[in-house]
Amino acid sequence: MKETKKQEFTKEYLIKKSVDFSQWYTDVILKSEMADYAPVKGCQVIMPYGYAIWETIQKVLDQMLKNDGIENAYFPLLIPQKSLQKEQEHIEGFSPELAIVTIGGGETLTEKLVLRPTSETIIYEMYAKWIKSWRDLPLRINQWANVVRWEKRTRLFLRTTEFLWQEGHTVHSTDKEALKETQKAIERYIKIYQEYFAIDGIWGKKSEQEKFPGAVHTFTYEMLMPDNKALQGCTSHYLGQNFAKAFHIQFLGKDGANHFPFQTCWGFSTRSLGALIMAHGDDNGLVLPPLLAPVQVVIVPILQGKNIDKKVLQMSEKLKNSLPVRVYADTREEYSSGWKFNHWELKGVPLRIEIGPREVQQKKATLARRDNGEKITVPLTSLPNRINKILQDIQKNLLQQTRKYLYSHIHEVKNYSEFQEIMEQKRGLAKAFWCEHPQCEQKIKEETKATTRCLAHNAKPQKGKCVYCQKPASHQWIFGIAY
Amino acid sequence: MKETKKQEFTKEYLIKKSVDFSQWYTDVILKSEMADYAPVKGCQVIMPYGYAIWETIQKVLDQMLKNDGIENAYFPLLIPQKSLQKEQEHIEGFSPELAIVTIGGGETLTEKLVLRPTSETIIYEMYAKWIKSWRDLPLRINQWANVVRWEKRTRLFLRTTEFLWQEGHTVHSTDKEALKETQKAIERYIKIYQEYFAIDGIWGKKSEQEKFPGAVHTFTYEMLMPDNKALQGCTSHYLGQNFAKAFHIQFLGKDGANHFPFQTCWGFSTRSLGALIMAHGDDNGLVLPPLLAPVQVVIVPILQGKNIDKKVLQMSEKLKNSLPVRVYADTREEYSSGWKFNHWELKGVPLRIEIGPREVQQKKATLARRDNGEKITVPLTSLPNRINKILQDIQKNLLQQTRKYLYSHIHEVKNYSEFQEIMEQKRGLAKAFWCEHPQCEQKIKEETKATTRCLAHNAKPQKGKCVYCQKPASHQWIFGIAY
Repeated sequence: MKETKKQEFTKEYLIKKSVDFSQWYTDVILKSEMADYAPVKGCQVIMPYGYAIWETIQKVLDQMLKNDGIENAYFPLLIPQKSLQKEQEHIEGFSPELAIVTIGGGETLTEKLVLRPTSETIIYEMYAKWIKSWRDLPLRINQWANVVRWEKRTRLFLRTTEFLWQEGHTVHSTDKEALKETQKAIERYIKIYQEYFAIDGIWGKKSEQEKFPGAVHTFTYEMLMPDNKALQGCTSHYLGQNFAKAFHIQFLGKDGANHFPFQTCWGFSTRSLGALIMAHGDDNGLVLPPLLAPVQVVIVPILQGKNIDKKVLQMSEKLKNSLPVRVYADTREEYSSGWKFNHWELKGVPLRIEIGPREVQQKKATLARRDNGEKITVPLTSLPNRINKILQDIQKNLLQQTRKYLYSHIHEVKNYSEFQEIMEQKRGLAKAFWCEHPQCEQKIKEETKATTRCLAHNAKPQKGKCVYCQKPASHQWIFGIAY
Repeated sequence: MKETKKQEFTKEYLIKKSVDFSQWYTDVILKSEMADYAPVKGCQVIMPYGYAIWETIQKVLDQMLKNDGIENAYFPLLIPQKSLQKEQEHIEGFSPELAIVTIGGGETLTEKLVLRPTSETIIYEMYAKWIKSWRDLPLRINQWANVVRWEKRTRLFLRTTEFLWQEGHTVHSTDKEALKETQKAIERYIKIYQEYFAIDGIWGKKSEQEKFPGAVHTFTYEMLMPDNKALQGCTSHYLGQNFAKAFHIQFLGKDGANHFPFQTCWGFSTRSLGALIMAHGDDNGLVLPPLLAPVQVVIVPILQGKNIDKKVLQMSEKLKNSLPVRVYADTREEYSSGWKFNHWELKGVPLRIEIGPREVQQKKATLARRDNGEKITVPLTSLPNRINKILQDIQKNLLQQTRKYLYSHIHEVKNYSEFQEIMEQKRGLAKAFWCEHPQCEQKIKEETKATTRCLAHNAKPQKGKCVYCQKPASHQWIFGIAY
């Protein structure tokens, strides 16, 4: 940790978000026990508190996939180098990031094996074997897996050498069906981000330069973080027939002829937890949206003196067993109430219930909201209803906050100097006409660090001039400096 | 596939279980689409049908763990070679099986990284960092992960280069508590095998030679396969303070002094699916116990002629929507009823419902059990109840069958020639006095291929003589030729 003045810490060792966002991010992850650094550079341990959030995401997303008729399977971690090389753009995109196994069982391998950076190649080798006729289509499979990408610069959750994700891979007889699947996949992710993560974002199409290596086009969900950098939340790719041709996937159509099918793939990873932490956290630590919080409500008994303690503890326990939410009663006697308040704030628990002698006497409970600090006193009889309403309100409020933040930080720019100013001053995203030539995109990136994030799905064709070269442009694109 | 005479196949390409067990095993896995060979030698793809079974196992076991207060986390795949070397017995046990990454991001790594063959070393490096005081204990974490072991001879599910499993790792302040946890873990597994897999087995303690490298003792669940080879189903290890000392895990006790804690670890893997296939399958394919079957009931409409077809299909659909089980109605028109019967028998669906014109007219359904071939006709009104009862009965029957088989193939032997005869003729397991000296165990293994499978948990101390050396022995051990 960098040297910092004492007053810049809100809690012991936790720096203020506004003072050093990057340090705050690392601190809050380590102190809240979301994750820890592993002995291998760039690798992390997802600790139980962080993993519980990932499990909830998995459960929700997995159910969505199953409801849509997608089945899970498991493909191998190890990919022969020659498989990976079959699709030209794909291997060019991933080759700088590969981890390679060269020794197995004490012997040097005759063929080097790559740890999957993503599984198109291994999966499509199998698909080529499995798919024979139109009867085998559509084929729609998902896998939950770990992947390895050798990144030069790593950050907890955001960019780790190994990360966890799901990757869906579907094959269809028509482009129409595949395009629909690509769209459906991004819609599922938007729902997850908005309804569960409570993070608003912009979804749309990536530029040719920024799309997935080997795809025809890529949909993305782009979020704006509080440091005004953009974060790509997930992607859904329409692969057309590119991989089908490279991997010789063919099916006998009803017409009796062989055809190349159309494919899609899409993924959602533990990187999303980085967005969750950054988007909502504050000077006191994490702020978790209720639907993803491992503990939605924490009960803290205020213990003062032996006689009353028993009643306070009894009421805390009783309350814990009566609430239909994920609730934890922190009845430990070795920690003070003040320590517990800080501890559970750091862990981002959406709602705290305080039960003290006064509460016992008045048959009331004092509730403290993590998102806005509001404190109210509620009669015990109406508690379950009120808690549900407050949790829903917190969930909604968090989404509203990110929505407000996002839209107040999108700047429609008229010229390149405005564009530059926004990027230099880290003021957010720029909405600008772009001629869609990679040269301009490249120049803008070199000069401002900003990249095209996406063409928003609702962007309408307009007459305009490219912000960089002044040549005709038909759409305004979203630009930003990305994580 | 080997050359075999036509009459040895019961279905096209599926050899009889009794003719060539080993070939039958591979065939039934590939044809039922449980798994497929991957391009890398020794690796497999777990296909949706096989993975659905694994998902059910995961769901059941994961809930058991959560109910017992164990939390999930995720530790890295990549382990520095030096971590792995900290516990001497452990590294000796695993070093012949390691897959090693030597290249990352295009560069030769200065420190080679091992793909986890199991995660004690990486997890205990972290535990050493996390555990400081008695307040941090017990620490009880589980992870669901892939592991890699470079095996010379591989078999689908039973021994694959990469496999999936859960591994639990707990740390306790007392040996008593750790011993209880080791016991609890094997009890969970016994429940899974008996109640869900419907496979009876013997549980007990491994010999010094056969225990986990680095453990004080190992509990195992041993099953007998129809080819009379023993299969180790899972293990639970009491580690004592061995790893704590090797990894410098210490905690400050309530007494103010530093202590080494006591540890346990235990795992259950996709190898179990191999047992499931072997134990219950027959000449017609898989036979799945209802609690693990992805499809518990398949409805096959008997389609004969246009007019009646509609009613048959309607009734099939209606039935599908009314049954509270995992049900599939195979209404596809491109396949005949006979083909469907074979197909779903091959896939081991516990119960088939046939709906034909006669069934429509009489408001009845014809049920066919997969386990014993029984066929009965049941009025529609009593169908849901009857189906539930039949499924329960199938589950029970399968367990009974394995129980009967197991106990009729355990031979209490009086002398070594009897022992040898049993192993030579592949007649099952031997129960024999053994002096517990590794030399006798080693000699027996060399001469008969049989190893000690376990000392059954209920084995009573007796006065006897070692089956090999005739020296005094206090217990009869279970011996067998193992997978």
